[in-house]
Amino acid sequence: MKILVDAYGSDKGPEEIKQGCKQALIKHPGLFIGLIGPETLGEDLPERMEILPTSEWISNEEEPAKAVRAKKQASIVLGARKMEEDYEGLLSAGSTGAMLATGLLITKRLPGISRAALTILLPTRPHPTVLLDAGANMDTDARLLTQFGLMGSIYTRNVLGLKQPRVGLLNVGTEEGKGNALTKESFSLLENAPLHFIGNVEARDLFSSVCDVVVCDGFTGNIALKTLEGTAGFITSALKEELMAGTKTKIGAFLAKDALRNLKNRLDYTQTGAAPLLGIRKPLFKAHGSSNAEAIANGIDKLVLFIEKDTIGALTVALQENPERGA
Amino acid sequence: MKILVDAYGSDKGPEEIKQGCKQALIKHPGLFIGLIGPETLGEDLPERMEILPTSEWISNEEEPAKAVRAKKQASIVLGARKMEEDYEGLLSAGSTGAMLATGLLITKRLPGISRAALTILLPTRPHPTVLLDAGANMDTDARLLTQFGLMGSIYTRNVLGLKQPRVGLLNVGTEEGKGNALTKESFSLLENAPLHFIGNVEARDLFSSVCDVVVCDGFTGNIALKTLEGTAGFITSALKEELMAGTKTKIGAFLAKDALRNLKNRLDYTQTGAAPLLGIRKPLFKAHGSSNAEAIANGIDKLVLFIEKDTIGALTVALQENPERGA
Repeated sequence: MKILVDAYGSDKGPEEIKQGCKQALIKHPGLFIGLIGPETLGEDLPERMEILPTSEWISNEEEPAKAVRAKKQASIVLGARKMEEDYEGLLSAGSTGAMLATGLLITKRLPGISRAALTILLPTRPHPTVLLDAGANMDTDARLLTQFGLMGSIYTRNVLGLKQPRVGLLNVGTEEGKGNALTKESFSLLENAPLHFIGNVEARDLFSSVCDVVVCDGFTGNIALKTLEGTAGFITSALKEELMAGTKTKIGAFLAKDALRNLKNRLDYTQTGAAPLLGIRKPLFKAHGSSNAEAIANGIDKLVLFIEKDTIGALTVALQENPERGA
Repeated sequence: MKILVDAYGSDKGPEEIKQGCKQALIKHPGLFIGLIGPETLGEDLPERMEILPTSEWISNEEEPAKAVRAKKQASIVLGARKMEEDYEGLLSAGSTGAMLATGLLITKRLPGISRAALTILLPTRPHPTVLLDAGANMDTDARLLTQFGLMGSIYTRNVLGLKQPRVGLLNVGTEEGKGNALTKESFSLLENAPLHFIGNVEARDLFSSVCDVVVCDGFTGNIALKTLEGTAGFITSALKEELMAGTKTKIGAFLAKDALRNLKNRLDYTQTGAAPLLGIRKPLFKAHGSSNAEAIANGIDKLVLFIEKDTIGALTVALQENPERGA
């Protein structure tokens, strides 16, 4: 299997991403990786790896659709074009907007779908919870949300290995009839969709593993994820402040440092690897912008599994059987 | 000044609420409190307090509108009716739904407004951040959001004492043009409203004090608040788990216990007192369901200030000058 990895985009730098690829090659003996990045990465190249050299990439500050159209040599654009040849998937830690624009403009959507959805993994146990849409679509309708549920369910089955993923609808209360016009209509469509719908789930249960797939529109998903990030940031910095406020608490913090490090790891997005843009014709995975080598290797694991299980094939069949505008 | 306090609703029990009232009476020499609750609270009654006895109240499990209509003797219903006599405001730690239904069905809305908004206080420093709507209205439009901004601004000026409260629109990015149809339209209306609009704010900045008033629809507000609660709960229980995992970390936790307690206090909703339902004809304040005596006393402080500053009068004028369906 041949896949592509974007060496740009992680704030840890291209060399760290190369290290992640090397770890993945050891784990997957049949894997070949095309690393898109600076030519200098070509030194000391391990077997089963090649460099696709470019010095261009798309930053978070650029207008994504414009940049994707203008920068033909940008790493993610180059990667998407290479997927039309013999590479089967692409992983990038770069700009989410650029990945979304690349998916829609270059890779293009699967037949029967008008919107692709961004997935994200919440750090729950024993396995992560998949949330979609994490921010690709600001205004949606009930049929789109149902399709997101279907795609999330297939992805979770194939990549996380859950036989019958429990799909929940993110809402303001668990009872049927709760919510806004969108969630009320989505509830009844999801009930009749070919997936294991468990009903509404509340935002306070995002960490409780009450379901395996959380469905929401991209606006709501983005609000939930950023609230989560903001709260985690607020608490960890407040904890640090309080621990450093006195001598006794400082000693306490020193003795408890293993526990504090473990807590940090549990909150760490990068541990969960990467998640795909679902609804497009090829596997396109987004890793976190702070991904280290381990996170990249984890992300590659997920991408390899996604390809091995022919997830795109399964999605294509499901979307043809349950087209967005159908019954 | 005569106000009412609902003795039911806090999971700490009626006696704790009575203690909070006593604290408030010491602080406010001109205050008289009517405490609505079990007759037994009438023993050892301090001066300037009377009991309005009832044994009925509305729980979180009841359907709010139905319960408000059926239970004439429920504490919050009784309180709302008493506000039509000589009591000037009501504080309750009971069901949010029951408070909302009471406000809309009994107290009724101010002229010129079709929706009331629930406010909530986020525990930021140096003063809390006001968020509205925290869950009263699931489907709204841009004019309603603008009115929420106006009401939030007046409330924050009067009760938190900020001269020119900074109003932000909760959105998925800070740039103009970001968001869904609702936030895009609201942005331009808020720009032209008589308030200090600072633009979009992201959910990750809810704790950063980037603005004083956060405006959103009730669905989004509820998702943000419950994500916040869920994340805080997840982190604190994960921290506890990690600290208890080893002997060294246990000793560390013991030495750091002051810091951990301070952290808990900073996250504690109950420290922020209470916040009003805005857009109705009388002051109706909601305290947290876990309110202790101190939280009740803090909530009464806010209610007293709200009344002293004639906030309802200010809201009435502002809503007449900027009616919902006007320019």
